[in-house]
Amino acid sequence: MAAMIDDAEKHPFGPAVGRLVQQLSGLPGIGRKTAERLANYLLSCSKAEALQLADAIRDVKEKVHRCRICFNLTDQEECSICRDPRRERSAVCVVEQPKDVMLLEASGAFGGLYHVLGGRISPLEGVGPEDLTIDALVRRVRQDEVREIVMATNPTVEGDGTALFISNLLENEPVRITRLARGIASGSVLEFANKEMLADALRGRQNF
Amino acid sequence: MAAMIDDAEKHPFGPAVGRLVQQLSGLPGIGRKTAERLANYLLSCSKAEALQLADAIRDVKEKVHRCRICFNLTDQEECSICRDPRRERSAVCVVEQPKDVMLLEASGAFGGLYHVLGGRISPLEGVGPEDLTIDALVRRVRQDEVREIVMATNPTVEGDGTALFISNLLENEPVRITRLARGIASGSVLEFANKEMLADALRGRQNF
Repeated sequence: MAAMIDDAEKHPFGPAVGRLVQQLSGLPGIGRKTAERLANYLLSCSKAEALQLADAIRDVKEKVHRCRICFNLTDQEECSICRDPRRERSAVCVVEQPKDVMLLEASGAFGGLYHVLGGRISPLEGVGPEDLTIDALVRRVRQDEVREIVMATNPTVEGDGTALFISNLLENEPVRITRLARGIASGSVLEFANKEMLADALRGRQNF
Repeated sequence: MAAMIDDAEKHPFGPAVGRLVQQLSGLPGIGRKTAERLANYLLSCSKAEALQLADAIRDVKEKVHRCRICFNLTDQEECSICRDPRRERSAVCVVEQPKDVMLLEASGAFGGLYHVLGGRISPLEGVGPEDLTIDALVRRVRQDEVREIVMATNPTVEGDGTALFISNLLENEPVRITRLARGIASGSVLEFANKEMLADALRGRQNF
């Protein structure tokens, strides 16, 4: 099978195809076989179509960068959320990655601003607080009129740890710190909830 | 979810990201969610890495074209198989697509040359004999010293029909026409056959 050809220079269609397969199989979730299939598609489609994809990749790397205020991704100086005058500027939701902003926005349940940390504190991976945008968050809390910080880091040991670290840093600031409710997922069944989810749901039980 | 965002210009990270997601989800087997994930990866990886992929795509479209003799893909005037003096030039294996050449080559059971049709006759999809490289194949049989044509079109109705059409065309030529042994399952496609099956099928090829 094609999977055997490890040396890009020796690809039967020539080194250019070999290098494309190599690049494609470097993408997350794309194995060697899928990379060959995608390369075959790119070889068979029109030149215009293939170059549109190449240009789209080049374009995002040239145009898209971090928002000056919240570190979300944007092609402007400030992202569309920070620029939106209808957003409640006193509430800031802290997330790990830009994609989390997208997910929370899709829920339509938050009308404030965001702050993208760029990851979470992970001693094992050598990521410390100084590698994240925590300093900038503290500055925002001090300079802007932020009255609530909503922690929306991932509900993992490292995500929780990062939220805890930040809430300790902000202890003496006049800001309310909350976090996303923990519990059972809407639409799921109790049978598939794990112990931790059920414990969270019980601890956080609400008036009916 | 991001899946709701159909208009590339309205992507929360800006139109450049929207267009990249749109382009990626145009690839075969890549849905909207995978496209968002790949775009997120391309946004987060280094600029050099992303541009390597963009350049690899551009490169294949600029360098790779059809072999003058067999219509396989190559970055030279003639493909590596046609240029190889050790190949048996009297046997020509007829396949639908360049990827089929790769699959058969990986089996190591055929030492002749190939002829890539560029598809199969499909009245339903409006593909007629004139859309394929059948004329060039007939010329090869008449001009070169071809003594055997091995039909290796897909074992489907259309693949078999194409092989039958070609064998009728070559009826009066002094050439033996064989086809892959049916060690491969009718109704499937070559892409999913393993090396051993393909090798068996090549060794057991029968008169057409």
